Amino acid sequence: MPEIKVEIRRGSYYDSVALMQLQSELLRQPGVTNAGVMMGNHANKALLQQNGLLTGDAQQALETDLIISIAANHADAADAALAKVDELLNRRRSTGDQDYRPKTLEAAANMLPEASWVLVSVPGRYAAGVAKEALRLRKNVFLYSDNVPLEDEISLKKHAAENGLLVMGPDCGTAIINGIGLGFANKVRSGPIGLVGASGTGLQQVTSRIHQLGSGITHALGTGGRDLSAAVGGITAMQSLDLLLRDESTKVIVLISKPPAAEVTARLLQRARLATKPIVINFIGYSPVKDPTASHLHFVSSLDEAADVAVELSKSKSKIKIPAETKKAASESSLYLRALFSGGTLAYETLLILQNYLSNIFSNVPLKKEQKLDDPLISREHTILDLGEDEFTVGRPHPMLDNTLRLERFHKEAADPQVGLILLDVVLGYGAHPDPASELVPAIEKVLKDAHKTGRALEVTVLLVGTDEDPQDLASQLERFKAAGARVETSPSQAAFYVGRHFQNSTVQPNWPPVDLDFIQKPVQAINIGLESFQASLSAQGATVVHVDWRPPAGGNEKLMSILERIKKT
Amino acid sequence: MPEIKVEIRRGSYYDSVALMQLQSELLRQPGVTNAGVMMGNHANKALLQQNGLLTGDAQQALETDLIISIAANHADAADAALAKVDELLNRRRSTGDQDYRPKTLEAAANMLPEASWVLVSVPGRYAAGVAKEALRLRKNVFLYSDNVPLEDEISLKKHAAENGLLVMGPDCGTAIINGIGLGFANKVRSGPIGLVGASGTGLQQVTSRIHQLGSGITHALGTGGRDLSAAVGGITAMQSLDLLLRDESTKVIVLISKPPAAEVTARLLQRARLATKPIVINFIGYSPVKDPTASHLHFVSSLDEAADVAVELSKSKSKIKIPAETKKAASESSLYLRALFSGGTLAYETLLILQNYLSNIFSNVPLKKEQKLDDPLISREHTILDLGEDEFTVGRPHPMLDNTLRLERFHKEAADPQVGLILLDVVLGYGAHPDPASELVPAIEKVLKDAHKTGRALEVTVLLVGTDEDPQDLASQLERFKAAGARVETSPSQAAFYVGRHFQNSTVQPNWPPVDLDFIQKPVQAINIGLESFQASLSAQGATVVHVDWRPPAGGNEKLMSILERIKKT
Repeated sequence: MPEIKVEIRRGSYYDSVALMQLQSELLRQPGVTNAGVMMGNHANKALLQQNGLLTGDAQQALETDLIISIAANHADAADAALAKVDELLNRRRSTGDQDYRPKTLEAAANMLPEASWVLVSVPGRYAAGVAKEALRLRKNVFLYSDNVPLEDEISLKKHAAENGLLVMGPDCGTAIINGIGLGFANKVRSGPIGLVGASGTGLQQVTSRIHQLGSGITHALGTGGRDLSAAVGGITAMQSLDLLLRDESTKVIVLISKPPAAEVTARLLQRARLATKPIVINFIGYSPVKDPTASHLHFVSSLDEAADVAVELSKSKSKIKIPAETKKAASESSLYLRALFSGGTLAYETLLILQNYLSNIFSNVPLKKEQKLDDPLISREHTILDLGEDEFTVGRPHPMLDNTLRLERFHKEAADPQVGLILLDVVLGYGAHPDPASELVPAIEKVLKDAHKTGRALEVTVLLVGTDEDPQDLASQLERFKAAGARVETSPSQAAFYVGRHFQNSTVQPNWPPVDLDFIQKPVQAINIGLESFQASLSAQGATVVHVDWRPPAGGNEKLMSILERIKKT
Repeated sequence: MPEIKVEIRRGSYYDSVALMQLQSELLRQPGVTNAGVMMGNHANKALLQQNGLLTGDAQQALETDLIISIAANHADAADAALAKVDELLNRRRSTGDQDYRPKTLEAAANMLPEASWVLVSVPGRYAAGVAKEALRLRKNVFLYSDNVPLEDEISLKKHAAENGLLVMGPDCGTAIINGIGLGFANKVRSGPIGLVGASGTGLQQVTSRIHQLGSGITHALGTGGRDLSAAVGGITAMQSLDLLLRDESTKVIVLISKPPAAEVTARLLQRARLATKPIVINFIGYSPVKDPTASHLHFVSSLDEAADVAVELSKSKSKIKIPAETKKAASESSLYLRALFSGGTLAYETLLILQNYLSNIFSNVPLKKEQKLDDPLISREHTILDLGEDEFTVGRPHPMLDNTLRLERFHKEAADPQVGLILLDVVLGYGAHPDPASELVPAIEKVLKDAHKTGRALEVTVLLVGTDEDPQDLASQLERFKAAGARVETSPSQAAFYVGRHFQNSTVQPNWPPVDLDFIQKPVQAINIGLESFQASLSAQGATVVHVDWRPPAGGNEKLMSILERIKKT
């Protein structure tokens, strides 16, 4: 039976890599058979338990406590190993290749005034404070730390964006700036492809494969996993996309993220549609319907496909032309769409496509909860209604048979001066209304005439579904809608793309100062604060780096910390 | 000022098309300026309000009450019109082209014993009872009615499946059986494409476009919108897919649905992968990553693309070969995957792909809530873990640096006799562990040796991410993992497809008797119960149809109804 000795260090801070190395060195001490050096959280305690190392005080350790547990052949050996802990920790500390180590970010910035980047990997609860200090010093931040509160992320990124600086992260695993990897990064050839990713190992796999395929990259910019959520609003992704669009060496852009929030998707894609570089987009697990007029956007569904398509595109020389319709001035930008569908799936596909164009769509059949219309009887901004939903059909025929409700709503929407376009589907066939044009055409003629009289920009688009053999006579229906002044489409996706382009400019783009291209184009000089191993890895890649000998403020005492913080502000 | 007269008919039942026609006829009565004939729900009352027709008793009308509201130049004219309501309703009733109308389904079945189909469009609360009676008479059901409770749908479909019958719906808008449209349907040329759809207007648009492109269809089978939910389990979709796979005239199959529940997707796609016909799949808004070994499955992202691809495929003559690996016997079907990832996005893409293969996956980073692992420390069935998640990394280095936790878990999983394959990612590059093979290879060798000794089928697959210029030496890492007996993949999607095929047969397929092909291959004979207009439309298409002169049982009195139901059962 081995002897187990345990030491608990309350509320202590150690570099987690240092702890891992301490554990390895303890295992090499004479008589030691097993050792665990871990913070006292649930997963770690379970692991110590499995190894028979969770004894005595260790069971009561808190998440913020460091557990050092040693099993040895006899008690003396365990005690001797425990006694060496501080010596082993200090020995590591002196092996760095940097002679003098500043204690603060400010001192480091004075040592290396040209540094544009600060790598922050201190524990999560200290990370926002360190990042804020870096921004104050006008440095861009690579924020590796996780467990950073969402509100801190939002406030850091807003502050950065307003000052033309980037915050990559928190929980940003990787980036490559001008050939130098920050955090975890593969060694990748220099080349024409630039990347933006809310995904660490996603960026690593895609950059590695680009290299394996014989091509290379300009920069790979990480955003952190929460950046494209509605709360953060894709601040870093928008800035990074803009940087790569302005960076002349970048010929093809790859954008990788889990499916972003609807309004973030709309904003990113609106910017992307106006770009004159090909953009490969992997919203992992979600491929939007392809807009034939935005053929420079390439939606892919796997990480490997992203690399394959980007490399292929980087070899082609074709010029990208943005259709005039897409670029047109935002004359209707204060006007809204009202879509009145009888067909549920037609409404669904239309919403699916238009949510990539318009950031403020509402519906009684929402795809995301933020799109839900409070009252289906009252439209709001861009509204897409399925009038075949139960709420509209109790005790009345389906709107494919009976246009009463739809006509009422049509006139109501047309009377709203904020409405710029009304979209109606007309589904022909057996079982449907024998002559929909007879009811809809007079209404369309009336509202267009009324709008014309007052000089209002109002359009009506009809999506006509049917065949030439349907009992209603497709050709005659089509002609009558056209004669009434409506635009007629027979494809749901084409109709949606038309509407999307019509309202293209209604999604407001942020108005931040551009991030200086120098930050990514100059040779990287950086300040590292947190994990020492990142310093070693930056030096190995030939970057100039200063490591800060960081300790938690006030020895990790949070109450004292917040007092110090308040004193600093005043 | 017009005079408004209102009549309320409590708890009355009328065919909704009949009400629409009554309203039109009332508008033609002398002196009448406006008329509303509607059930008293919120939307309808709002509509009457807008027209100034919601006066007197009408305001208090319930959802089950019929409101007849008439505006006329003077009170006498309104009264006269109201007095004609019953006459107008009765006049309509006698204009049908069927001399004798049975009062019950059973009587109709006796009149038309060859009928295989019953179209049910009675109000939702009566629909399940009528459908049940149809199944009892061994008829397939086209259930147009909406507002049918979910538990009724489940019970009807289970009963039908166990008896080799189909229930399309509830809320099934369309179907085309052997050239005859049920419900709403376009007139579409006969041809080689068969369709299954949980979407009414989706099927209408795709069938119409197939016709416009010069091709045609065999059958279009609707399932109702809820069929592919976890609760219903895709019963009708599975039966319909199976029918079309057996139907020799169907050369290409199109499957349309909003993204199904994870386990339904897995079951449908498992069946589809083993098919020898090309299948075009539009899970609207969701395109899975393409498995190169299942090249007969074509994922598309819009309704029009579904039609375009299906028509293209129907012209090609190439034979489909199912890879032997996919067909292999279910020898490992009781064994499970355990995937231990260090990279979050690698875990995410793996889960995204494997959820289309395996119906019982759990994870600490679930894509759907039913995949959530209760305790990340305890694996369950197929488990995919991201060991880089916060719960595993508090106060310890990321698993890309430190394999301690991963090795413990690896040995634990390998010791579980239910485990058939362990998947590990190894991410090379700056910042990562300097030599992952040194830690992982001995562990892999040990567990494979132990498994070999006991004759257990255990495999280890390593997903290796990196470049040939990474400091760890990719080639040597790869060789060492191979030498240890692991399969090594360098593409996340290829690794996932390999695992998917390995466990292909672990998703249990239902064991129902096949639905008789005769039901769809014979000329359609049908019984119609509910909307009279569907009878007219079936007759116009040349189908033999008997209409049931249905009234709500017990005059719509629900209490009496349930007593009658109980008497019938005994």
